[in-house]
Amino acid sequence: MEVFAVEGLPEVRPGDDVAELLVRQADLRDDDVVCVASTIVSKANGRGRSLSSYEPSGRAERIAATIEDIANEEKDPRMAQAILDECEEVLVEAPFILGVTEFGHITVNAGIDRSNVPGADLLLLPEDPTAEAEAICDGIRERTGVEPSVIVTDTSGRPFRLGQRGVALGWDGLPASRDWRGEHDRDGRELEATVQAVVDELAAAANLVTGEGDGGTPAAVVRDFDFGDHAGSEQLFRDPEKDVVRQALREWSHVRD
Amino acid sequence: MEVFAVEGLPEVRPGDDVAELLVRQADLRDDDVVCVASTIVSKANGRGRSLSSYEPSGRAERIAATIEDIANEEKDPRMAQAILDECEEVLVEAPFILGVTEFGHITVNAGIDRSNVPGADLLLLPEDPTAEAEAICDGIRERTGVEPSVIVTDTSGRPFRLGQRGVALGWDGLPASRDWRGEHDRDGRELEATVQAVVDELAAAANLVTGEGDGGTPAAVVRDFDFGDHAGSEQLFRDPEKDVVRQALREWSHVRD
Ligand SMILES: Nc1nc2c(ncn2[C@@H]2O[C@H](COP(=O)(O)OP(=O)(O)O)[C@@H](O)[C@H]2O)c(=O)[nH]1
Ligand SMILES: Nc1nc2c(ncn2[C@@H]2O[C@H](COP(=O)(O)OP(=O)(O)O)[C@@H](O)[C@H]2O)c(=O)[nH]1
Ligand SMILES: [Mn+2]
Ligand SMILES: [Mn+2]
Ligand SMILES: [Mn+2]
Ligand SMILES: [Mn+2]
Repeated sequence: MEVFAVEGLPEVRPGDDVAELLVRQADLRDDDVVCVASTIVSKANGRGRSLSSYEPSGRAERIAATIEDIANEEKDPRMAQAILDECEEVLVEAPFILGVTEFGHITVNAGIDRSNVPGADLLLLPEDPTAEAEAICDGIRERTGVEPSVIVTDTSGRPFRLGQRGVALGWDGLPASRDWRGEHDRDGRELEATVQAVVDELAAAANLVTGEGDGGTPAAVVRDFDFGDHAGSEQLFRDPEKDVVRQALREWSHVRD
Repeated sequence: MEVFAVEGLPEVRPGDDVAELLVRQADLRDDDVVCVASTIVSKANGRGRSLSSYEPSGRAERIAATIEDIANEEKDPRMAQAILDECEEVLVEAPFILGVTEFGHITVNAGIDRSNVPGADLLLLPEDPTAEAEAICDGIRERTGVEPSVIVTDTSGRPFRLGQRGVALGWDGLPASRDWRGEHDRDGRELEATVQAVVDELAAAANLVTGEGDGGTPAAVVRDFDFGDHAGSEQLFRDPEKDVVRQALREWSHVRD
């Protein structure tokens, strides 16, 4: 399996066609997995925003003040408002805002980026990353006849472990997971619940070659990945009612009486 | 960057030398990252156990009964005891046991495996995976003069997202993370806190080619990964007192009065 960055992509602007940009820079194959940073999908979709377009609600003001208080970190109430606007549910208000996006991803600041966004104060995540992955996949097929899989990725933090890693937000052309249930181990014993989130592992692999800073690139190709002869599963985000960590966070508050 | 499985490894037994097994099967290079499944490190270290060697405490009996009750899933109290023995702290007792291992990893069942363990009922994680990674690295160097990086990996679940993915438990020869703080984005703006957990991303990439079932292999090589000219950071596990999710779980209980 090979992982390489797509070099030479331009600064992406609202209205740009990401599929067109990709096929100009890379000779893609049917069994490639093209991992595209959500940043450029958002830029193409015009998801850049200026802070001055946000009018903070009382809640946003209160959250920003609490964060300033306990995290000792400047928090613009308009940024808090932008985050609230992107959240279907807020799980943690302080010391940082942890939110659930409309499409089910749970991440700090609802994934709003303030880096790598020339010409805007902030960049929202794509509204429907799986629809975007499908559109990029379709666009590549229409232009080249080749139909690779596409994953729209982000770099995101996680509980328990420091640092961030690449994750999948949306995908097309492959299942989210390899489902090993019912298959057997080396001892002939049936494997216990084992669902392998391959789209996240592919996104993580891609993130190793794309990077975060000004020297990076916003797309990578995984070539010769073999999904293998396994069942697939489409769901990547936990059912809210069965997610213990989500339940616990709903009940928790950093601010004590 | 290339990722390939190390083929032809035997069934690993207590006392085996993992470095020796690896160098027999792969021509390694100095800048390779060798990802080794914790399963074979544990087998070589004699970490297989039989259930009958565990005498469940009252707490283990109670936890097993509660899980049977609410998760409707058979739970052997001796297995609960094995898990408790491996935990420095138990964060969740039911509907599953989520524990913190001595070396700081948080995972269900303290990472004890019941698959791929011929000749034993269960397999404990290595006691000190970073020491094991160092030993494998040293063993490879002594035998070949070549000194690749080594990551001891596991396949593990996570909050919010379904399924499991490869993670690093221990590592040697490279930092845990690329630390991008102080570097600049495409707009010349200083990057916000951005620490990229590359050892986890490498473990995830490796897991794509190793697999879970009887047809897989327990080691993979990542070749031509470029860490780049970045600061490194050694810590992978969050400081318990700063980990909001850990705090929330400590206070949460599935069993209500
Ligand atoms: N060529 C190009 N690269 C970009 C653009 N936007 C971001 N990047 C690069 O793509 C990589 C990923 O960007 P990042 O902001 O981390 O994306 P995210 O992980 O989706 O939030 C970084 O190395 C950026 O320098 C763009 O419009 N054009
Ligand atoms: N050759 C060989 N393969 C093994 C051995 N133990 C496990 N495997 C394979 O290595 C892969 C990883 O095993 P797994 O139990 O998922 O390891 P873990 O992710 O560290 O828990 C699977 O494909 C297993 O079939 C062994 O002793 N020898
Ligand atoms: Mn982002
Ligand atoms: Mn990124
Ligand atoms: Mn395991
Ligand atoms: Mn595994």
